[in-house]
Formats: sequence, structure tokens, C-alpha cells
Amino acid sequence: MIVKKTEQPRRKPTAAKRGRVGSLRSIGVIRSGLKTRKEAPKQGAEGAPEAWLEVRAFAGPALDGLAEGDDIIVLTWLHQARRDVLKVHPRGDKSNPLTGVFATRSPDRPNPVGLHRVTVRQIGKNRLLISPIEAIDGTPVVDIKPVLSGVADF
Amino acid sequence: MIVKKTEQPRRKPTAAKRGRVGSLRSIGVIRSGLKTRKEAPKQGAEGAPEAWLEVRAFAGPALDGLAEGDDIIVLTWLHQARRDVLKVHPRGDKSNPLTGVFATRSPDRPNPVGLHRVTVRQIGKNRLLISPIEAIDGTPVVDIKPVLSGVADF
Repeated sequence: MIVKKTEQPRRKPTAAKRGRVGSLRSIGVIRSGLKTRKEAPKQGAEGAPEAWLEVRAFAGPALDGLAEGDDIIVLTWLHQARRDVLKVHPRGDKSNPLTGVFATRSPDRPNPVGLHRVTVRQIGKNRLLISPIEAIDGTPVVDIKPVLSGVADF
Repeated sequence: MIVKKTEQPRRKPTAAKRGRVGSLRSIGVIRSGLKTRKEAPKQGAEGAPEAWLEVRAFAGPALDGLAEGDDIIVLTWLHQARRDVLKVHPRGDKSNPLTGVFATRSPDRPNPVGLHRVTVRQIGKNRLLISPIEAIDGTPVVDIKPVLSGVADF
């Protein structure tokens, strides 16, 4: 039995919390030799390694149609990021002026979703070998999308 | 007073629900002349209009550093999408073979996060005029990221 304490005023939700729109579910996880944020490059193109993207069993059928050599976009949940940061010194360099996080690729932001353009190197049962990927070991994956056409920098 | 019915067995969570990793909060909303999925083009490059991205007050400071003419990536929460779909006929065309959603850009997918590359046309107080954007009016926005360099198709 749970007794609701009506005597206590409920804590007023913060502005950020009031706008909840949905829950992300892990569809997989990154298995990488990178174990900490400190050792990870800031972007994939800055010397990031390859890693396995292990897809959870329920989501395996959603991989059908992907092939080795495909360029894909992986969306991750940057689980070690801070969500209360609105401005940063870009690249963690204090000599760069404070900048809004929406004008940077800082992992610290209201919704820490990571965006990684990678190539599929190998396909196994419910897993993809991808590179280059700067996400650290254990990072949850929330979506995979094909690159639509051409060569993209982002 | 809330009485917890311990007599009833709790419903076993589905595999998809067990992997919850985080809640997305709206940082803004799309204000567009497109009112329904039916009238929206499937991709921005397919004739999508411009729209206002209204940013919530708490997130306004995170815009500092963005400028008119910038290419940005907008992540949305496709609130009308289905989350239980793992395979689709691409582009809704039954003559296309069933394909895993991770090999398509279908809005229906386990985590319906929309990815839109757009250009900033105009900047107002806590809002950006952007184009081209196929997201419909009322679509929650969850993140904005700068395009890193060059010209991208995705």
C-alpha cells in the first residue's frame, strides 16, 4: 500500500523536465576498445577506431537490407554526458569563447544524442562492425539510418 | 491514497521496453504549413517548405553562435510514428520488398528520431527560420547540431 503524502507540496518540475516527449530504448550497444571519454577522439574522423555495434535480439530483423560497405548514421545515447549544460568552450579549450551547445558538437547538451556517420565493415548475426566511431564501450545505440546519397560530412 | 494491487501479477515488460536508456525533452517545436503526414514530402530535398523552429525559453542560450546561412542538423521526435514496426516497404510502395527499418528512413522505427539537414534562413528571438524541412507542424525538436564541414547528403 502506498500512501500519497498530500500534506507535502509536490516539487515543481523544472522547465526542462516539463517538455518530456518520449523515452528512448536501446536497440543495441557499442563494443569498443575505447573505455573512457578521456581517451576517445572528439569526432570519428579524428582517428577513431572500429567497433562492434551489437544489436539486441528484438531489433535484429530491422537490419535486413544493410550490406557491407554501406554508409550509415548511428544515433547513440551519450550516457555519460551532462544534460544541464547550455554553453561550452568548444573542444574543451578555454581560449574558445563560450558558445551555445546547439552551435557545437559537445556531448553535453539537453538531449545527449550522438550522431555518427560510419561505414559498415562486416556483418555478423545481430551485429555490425563499423568505423570510425568515437563512442566509448557500452554506449547505448538508439537508431541506425542509411545515408541517403553521395558523400556527407557532418 | 493509492492502493497497490499486489494480487495482480505485474505485466512482464516487453523486450523493447526493458532497454529504456533516457527520456527526451522538447527543446523546441516546428511551426509549419504542413499539417499532416500525408501532405509532407518524405525527405526535405523533395520539395519541403521552410518552417519556424521555435526554441523553448530555457534552451535559448544554447543557440548562441548560430548564424544565418549556417547548415545545421535538426533532430526531431516523430510523435505520430509507430514504434513497433521493424520492417517496411520502402517509401510505402508495396512493390518494394519488405526491408528492415534500419536500412530505410521510415519514420516508423523503435526510436522515431527524425534527422533533418537544413539551412538557417533567419534568426529571431528564440527561433530559427529553416528550410527545407518535411517535419509537420507541432513536431517536437530535441536537438540542433552544426554540420561539421563541407556539403552533406544524408
